Amino acid sequence: MIEARTLQGFSDFLPEAMYLRRYLSDTWRQTFTAFGYGELDTPSLEYEDILMGKIGEDEKLIYRFVDNGDRHVALRYDQTVPLARVVVQHRNDLKMPFKRYQISKVWRADSPRKGRKREFYQCDADIIGSNSPVADAEILAVVSHGMKMLGVENFVINLNHRGILKAMMKNWNIAAELQIQVFRAIDRFDKVGLDGVRQELINRQIPTGTHERILELLSWQERDSEKTLVWLEEKLGHFPEAQEGIENLRKIIVLSAAMGVKAENIFLNLNLVRGLDYYTGMVFEVTVPQFGRTSLAGGGRYDKLTQSFSDADLPGVGVGIGFETLYELFQEHPIVFPTTAPEMLLIALDEQLLPTIADLALQIRQTGKRVMMYAGGNEKLSKQLKYANDMHIKYVLILGADEAKAGKIQVKNMITGESMTVKLDEIVSKMSVML
Amino acid sequence: MIEARTLQGFSDFLPEAMYLRRYLSDTWRQTFTAFGYGELDTPSLEYEDILMGKIGEDEKLIYRFVDNGDRHVALRYDQTVPLARVVVQHRNDLKMPFKRYQISKVWRADSPRKGRKREFYQCDADIIGSNSPVADAEILAVVSHGMKMLGVENFVINLNHRGILKAMMKNWNIAAELQIQVFRAIDRFDKVGLDGVRQELINRQIPTGTHERILELLSWQERDSEKTLVWLEEKLGHFPEAQEGIENLRKIIVLSAAMGVKAENIFLNLNLVRGLDYYTGMVFEVTVPQFGRTSLAGGGRYDKLTQSFSDADLPGVGVGIGFETLYELFQEHPIVFPTTAPEMLLIALDEQLLPTIADLALQIRQTGKRVMMYAGGNEKLSKQLKYANDMHIKYVLILGADEAKAGKIQVKNMITGESMTVKLDEIVSKMSVML
Repeated sequence: MIEARTLQGFSDFLPEAMYLRRYLSDTWRQTFTAFGYGELDTPSLEYEDILMGKIGEDEKLIYRFVDNGDRHVALRYDQTVPLARVVVQHRNDLKMPFKRYQISKVWRADSPRKGRKREFYQCDADIIGSNSPVADAEILAVVSHGMKMLGVENFVINLNHRGILKAMMKNWNIAAELQIQVFRAIDRFDKVGLDGVRQELINRQIPTGTHERILELLSWQERDSEKTLVWLEEKLGHFPEAQEGIENLRKIIVLSAAMGVKAENIFLNLNLVRGLDYYTGMVFEVTVPQFGRTSLAGGGRYDKLTQSFSDADLPGVGVGIGFETLYELFQEHPIVFPTTAPEMLLIALDEQLLPTIADLALQIRQTGKRVMMYAGGNEKLSKQLKYANDMHIKYVLILGADEAKAGKIQVKNMITGESMTVKLDEIVSKMSVML
Repeated sequence: MIEARTLQGFSDFLPEAMYLRRYLSDTWRQTFTAFGYGELDTPSLEYEDILMGKIGEDEKLIYRFVDNGDRHVALRYDQTVPLARVVVQHRNDLKMPFKRYQISKVWRADSPRKGRKREFYQCDADIIGSNSPVADAEILAVVSHGMKMLGVENFVINLNHRGILKAMMKNWNIAAELQIQVFRAIDRFDKVGLDGVRQELINRQIPTGTHERILELLSWQERDSEKTLVWLEEKLGHFPEAQEGIENLRKIIVLSAAMGVKAENIFLNLNLVRGLDYYTGMVFEVTVPQFGRTSLAGGGRYDKLTQSFSDADLPGVGVGIGFETLYELFQEHPIVFPTTAPEMLLIALDEQLLPTIADLALQIRQTGKRVMMYAGGNEKLSKQLKYANDMHIKYVLILGADEAKAGKIQVKNMITGESMTVKLDEIVSKMSVML
């Protein structure tokens, strides 16, 4: 006998859990398609060399092995490298700008802990082949649309720009090799506060003269984006890359507003430091006050996507939705959402009545309701009622011999406990409008 | 530079291909949920010993490797073994009868050829924990419902019963060790005909005296199920397992008819030989005349599902839908089906008009339409129209400076080539009702 068990960091999701997971993926799928994104599905296994050399030291987390044909293969680590491969491999079949979304599993041999699994879903939307701020703005509009669909209205899109960050470093006269240290210190601000960052800067041997200027930046907490842009122009406008970044952000904000992103959902957060090696323009992370610093989505503009596979670099901008993070948050903070759970259970008290019940189930199902017969046959009523209760089914329809003879059927509301008797020839239309 | 390529037997699916694949999986998902099945998601990686020893010699097709933690792991080979594991591992959380569906990828290190990939989707629905013919009938009703949803009305559910097959062998006095040879010969009937089977029986050294009786069975081609059942009762009724099987099939057919399975979609096919080692009751395979012998779905009743993991055997009945087979057939025989492709492209002829266009896109999107802005910004009209054409987008809305001043916008039907001018304050309501 083999013990039934799963690998650490891997999970089964039973139907009760899948309702929420399916609702989340459906919501993002609908959001992406509403904006005209097409779906992409890529293999779970790739040639190892497709994945290696792209992600730095985390490369050790890639699941790799040699297959039966002596090929070195690896399990998908993210959806970005496969996207880059697809864009090069299928360049003749793709229409640019290529707007694609992908919601699929990735695998990382990481130490499992809360919020970190070895197998999890990623949920990404990207636009490849456009430099226009229309593309950047649309990515923000997509995030905004999806968050509203999930009933989250008070999300904050923390927005910054790579060009501005670069100019800041110049303005502070920070040597190139120290920049990463400064960004790491800044990145700690939410956790350790101003004094904490000052200490971090000391620890990281950042020149003392620059500390107060860096801390001044951290203290800038202005909710009006335009005011921040004007302030930045005064401070950094003499650096061309800063001015370019400021103008770019201004266009993105104006366009995203026209696309439905509310001003109160945008926050120019000059402390936002995100994957600097990767991004080249706008960067953003989405947070929600009641969930603290947890990032629910993030992304930005990049332009070296395809460099491993082709000389022709293509600009891109995209967002990764924190699918598993959203799933965990909505488990901890339950929401009401539509499910595909069964709505009714039909019970025959007598084996002879099973076909009658089957026919009723068919007719009610044809009105669009999700209707179950009890698959165990005609077992005891109490057992079938318990089943309905365990499955959170709202309505139970019970047909006994006497009722059948009288052309009637009993309808029981499992939530209120109320019962009523309905004529058999009225039951279909009656149940079709019940919730 | 790394060559962008995929492993043999693995495929990328670009948006154009995903429309059909998503339509197929959505259709089955809706079918399963309409009958009250819940979704299950299991890990792609399992401990090797969970998968091994369950599937005979095909075991060599399992992708196996040793992970970084020296664990022997394997990629999911099918969805049935994980279901068995889940049923035992989560027995305290599951409500019986457990009705679950799963649509996910499996991996087999098979020789790739047409219709055989190394990575492909399986699409299964099963009922665990019920012996009732209600469950068997419902599985047939689920298949029938789904096929009709796909617009296939003339499918044939080829139906047989393990009890009847067993009794046949007794009736023919075929020794136990020869039964598998007889079944293999019978299984060739569709390909080689009566004479071919006769030759197979000779080759396989089946006693000559039984040949004509076996061939008599193969010649029985009666479309009326009840007539076949009566004929079987005459022939085999004296074997208890045959009589039990016949009675069981009769109940299943009556119940499935009440559940909406039409008599003309059921064919008692006494030649149907399907995974004998596995099934214990009803067995079936779905074919469609215009697609020849290709099986579009198949399944049956089994009762040893959990035997590797638990002493408590649970009865089960289920169906596997041939997802990839359906996908290939509908590619070869195109059908019209609803997609989530974008319906409209909005174009601004002037950068200043991008926010106006963005706002219009938002408003039309809010009516439920899938609306794109051209993500490349305001490039040449001809380029944007080509993009719309390449993407098979039906309507293009074009706003130029003159039209904007006049409070109007141009609407172009890309299929007919017709254009018309619409007032800006009427365009949202107008487009919301256009197809």
